[in-house]
Amino acid sequence: MTAAPETPARTAAAPRCTLGDIAREANVSVPTVSKVLNGHSDISPQTRRRIEALLTRYGYQRPRAPRRKTQRGDLIDLVINELDSAWGLEILTGVEQVAEAAGLGLVVSAVHNRASLTRRWLEGLISRGSQGAILVLSDLSEDQRAELHRRTLPFVVVDGVSQPPPDVPSVGATNFSGGYAAAEHLIRLGHRRIGAIGGPEQLLCSRARIAGYRAALESAGLPTDRDLVRYGNFQHNGGLRAAQQLLALPDPPTAIFAGSDQQATGVYEAARLIGRQIPHDLSVVGFDDLHYAQWTAPPLTTIRQPLHEMGASAARLLLRLVNGEHLEAPRIELHTELILRNSTAPPTCGDS
Amino acid sequence: MTAAPETPARTAAAPRCTLGDIAREANVSVPTVSKVLNGHSDISPQTRRRIEALLTRYGYQRPRAPRRKTQRGDLIDLVINELDSAWGLEILTGVEQVAEAAGLGLVVSAVHNRASLTRRWLEGLISRGSQGAILVLSDLSEDQRAELHRRTLPFVVVDGVSQPPPDVPSVGATNFSGGYAAAEHLIRLGHRRIGAIGGPEQLLCSRARIAGYRAALESAGLPTDRDLVRYGNFQHNGGLRAAQQLLALPDPPTAIFAGSDQQATGVYEAARLIGRQIPHDLSVVGFDDLHYAQWTAPPLTTIRQPLHEMGASAARLLLRLVNGEHLEAPRIELHTELILRNSTAPPTCGDS
Repeated sequence: MTAAPETPARTAAAPRCTLGDIAREANVSVPTVSKVLNGHSDISPQTRRRIEALLTRYGYQRPRAPRRKTQRGDLIDLVINELDSAWGLEILTGVEQVAEAAGLGLVVSAVHNRASLTRRWLEGLISRGSQGAILVLSDLSEDQRAELHRRTLPFVVVDGVSQPPPDVPSVGATNFSGGYAAAEHLIRLGHRRIGAIGGPEQLLCSRARIAGYRAALESAGLPTDRDLVRYGNFQHNGGLRAAQQLLALPDPPTAIFAGSDQQATGVYEAARLIGRQIPHDLSVVGFDDLHYAQWTAPPLTTIRQPLHEMGASAARLLLRLVNGEHLEAPRIELHTELILRNSTAPPTCGDS
Repeated sequence: MTAAPETPARTAAAPRCTLGDIAREANVSVPTVSKVLNGHSDISPQTRRRIEALLTRYGYQRPRAPRRKTQRGDLIDLVINELDSAWGLEILTGVEQVAEAAGLGLVVSAVHNRASLTRRWLEGLISRGSQGAILVLSDLSEDQRAELHRRTLPFVVVDGVSQPPPDVPSVGATNFSGGYAAAEHLIRLGHRRIGAIGGPEQLLCSRARIAGYRAALESAGLPTDRDLVRYGNFQHNGGLRAAQQLLALPDPPTAIFAGSDQQATGVYEAARLIGRQIPHDLSVVGFDDLHYAQWTAPPLTTIRQPLHEMGASAARLLLRLVNGEHLEAPRIELHTELILRNSTAPPTCGDS
């Protein structure tokens, strides 16, 4: 475990300073510091911020009570950016299955694209005595991480927006290798002009998929034409817009790696609007293998992320942390896999 | 409120018998009856069943403590048959929104097509001190209803499998009226041979949709041909199979009311497999308006169920029950609505 520079004491298991030290430095009473630690709201925001800054600066960590095993009726929390995505749902099913088997209740919250978790959420977590939290595609600020740490509340990140610090337990999928497999499949079918649509550029998983696609083209000795790569939003409309741009190029691609299954549905619609048949006139590969990838017409060839298993793995990691275990390898990347269906075929025209 | 015949005392607000009465009749001690009431597991199954039968027979209800208002950190439960459906997810988002606004944690469980809720789930609910439960498309047995009632644990049913007893608070959608609107839209476009695919026949919502379709045909003076109605499973494969049968008829329909959006994706695939274009060669209407109904190629004309709002209404009903309010109208049906997109058009051939 390494610590970020601003939290020098976070590597130590025992606290290096006491509440008394913090109280003296903040010029407040020990009970006031204690109230901040316990999330009470009858502290002025200024005082709370001053005390929290000191707690973070000195890396205060609450003395860890001997962990008891979890028991029936205990809770864990799942926080997800948007609940209304098939993607988040499949992760939820994996978490729920492990929680249910362990006899734990699973509290589910959405953060609705707010930049970060709110204090209100954290207060709820604490007042209901949650054992720990799984955070899906929502980043914690350094302060929030420090606060969870101080309270010895374990947490696990699934597919963080950015690279999590090395001491943060996390679960993801092999996005680079998935992007590589998508492009490699299309190259093997004989495609030479292969478009790609990434998700939001700031998302690490999106950049990793596009990097994998580029690497496969380079391995095959194909040029990587900048015009053939567009960025969407991982949604249908982003895929539709990007595919319309790609198909309007003077030398359009004969195949598109759509970056996500939702973007692939946009590519389907772009093809339909100009009377192109999939896969005869255009091959399409998605990414995710959401349930509905089997239900598109034609059924979608895609890169499977084991979303259910990612949720289950995150829950198992969290339970180990809750039970006081030390994790040797706090970062897990689960394997992606090419799922062949009916949306890809050899090119029938173009420059292959 | 009316009571089912086997629970004669359930209409009364105050208990008509005491634990002492039950203990005497069961020939056990009062603490033993109390343990059964509190869900303790150190009672033999035979004894527990005997005591529960007596509690149900006499309609014992725990004296209702004066309800306090819910407070931060309190929990409510959502139980859903299958989590991995876009349908259940949209209900979940509505429940989550109301719970979050009320400062309550939402515990989510799946029952995974088990016939009914398990004792294990009920014990979890009680041990975590949940304030009440929302049950989505999963029926309670009479005994389970009686048990929740005895514990004064309020619950609300969303889209129950069958007609809930009149004293059970429930939220649904106007399925009959939705089926009517789907068929009426196709009739107005000029279709005369209109197929329909229901979901599982035992589901009340499925039968109501088909009944609405039939009523619209009758209102328009069209014959209701038995051959044109098939039953699926509300899934893609059920829709595919039923559509293949319909399209293979000697006099096939020019339009299909697919009964659910998932079944509509199956109809799309059936059309694609025989080279029929939607809507030129076949019109399709779905039911639900799941997110992905906008993303099919072409975008799906469908009947919108306000699933998010159904979840939110159920949560609001539950909060009123938790706070001790009496519900004047414990059954709510929210309105369905025709959403016009691109999968329907006037017939270009056939017997219209």
